[in-house]
Amino acid sequence: MSGLRTIPARSGKAAFARKGQKVKVVNTYGEQVVDTWAFARHDLREFMSMEHTRATLTRMRPEVGEPFYSNRRRPILTLVEDSSPGVHDTLMAACDNYRYGLLGCTEYHDNCTDNLAAGLYELGLTPPETPSPLNLFMNIPWDAEGGLVFAAPVTKPGDYVLFEANLNVVMAFSACPQDILPINGEGRAPTEAHFEILD
Amino acid sequence: MSGLRTIPARSGKAAFARKGQKVKVVNTYGEQVVDTWAFARHDLREFMSMEHTRATLTRMRPEVGEPFYSNRRRPILTLVEDSSPGVHDTLMAACDNYRYGLLGCTEYHDNCTDNLAAGLYELGLTPPETPSPLNLFMNIPWDAEGGLVFAAPVTKPGDYVLFEANLNVVMAFSACPQDILPINGEGRAPTEAHFEILD
Repeated sequence: MSGLRTIPARSGKAAFARKGQKVKVVNTYGEQVVDTWAFARHDLREFMSMEHTRATLTRMRPEVGEPFYSNRRRPILTLVEDSSPGVHDTLMAACDNYRYGLLGCTEYHDNCTDNLAAGLYELGLTPPETPSPLNLFMNIPWDAEGGLVFAAPVTKPGDYVLFEANLNVVMAFSACPQDILPINGEGRAPTEAHFEILD
Repeated sequence: MSGLRTIPARSGKAAFARKGQKVKVVNTYGEQVVDTWAFARHDLREFMSMEHTRATLTRMRPEVGEPFYSNRRRPILTLVEDSSPGVHDTLMAACDNYRYGLLGCTEYHDNCTDNLAAGLYELGLTPPETPSPLNLFMNIPWDAEGGLVFAAPVTKPGDYVLFEANLNVVMAFSACPQDILPINGEGRAPTEAHFEILD
């Protein structure tokens, strides 16, 4: 466990992973959404794209063994294992300060968009844009009419996903600071989460 | 009808619309998908965002009377009228040359991503990125398990949507050149479409 790194509650972290390495993301306390991004190391303008992944797989999200695709239609991260029920979201934008304003906040609120930038900044990098994130452990049920719900996670403490990097990548993670909607559990208490880069 | 402008088959066009003006997009021959974008005129980095719209409305797509939101969470285009059955897609990326390569093309294929750039270029502008488009008239049914299908349109000749601009915007349209999948009809024959800016 020496390699396990903390994504502090309400914060962002980033790390490099080489092609072939595994990336484990752990829902340590069981109710924390982790917004996740992957950028190609050689050119950050290539990144994991939810809309390109849906189009290539013709599915809302990959099943175990399938890749996420980049905006240049290349496999960038393959979903290798998932100990959770597999409920992850590809539909919702990263939260941002504008979002919390609409939810009634009158002062700055931590948010995943800024956490992406802060995580990359620690590595000396700047995101070229804010791609629509892979919202790990986030439960957004849809219905036949297209209705969507911000619901509580269906995960348990210690649930994890394991990816294999298909390219040299920069990964970024945000322990989502949403404490108004129940997306991080009915207690609305964001927690830390963890990740590990494995050979 | 003097103001009706052509989006040539397989091509892109762009135009300015002031706040309060209406933008009509016509499916002239009834089976043509029109990838549609809107950028804020004062700063192209603000644009109509499918992932922010879904999150704000908690619905896959707006109903008549509701807005699409920008990536800064502001209403940017309101859906005012829709003569079609209301089947439009917000899930799929714009096609690109990489996509056609995966579909077996060995030479360059016209595509909506390049059509966005070409349309804006005619106005002296460059898109800051390729936002996930509003795919007007595109029929992507989803199922309870998350399966998605590239299906033929359910529209008829002359069906149109009418938007009101909530900001001064630059609109861009691509008459999607997809001729391999049946997204532009079982005949796989992309056609021109039309648009009009109305006071």
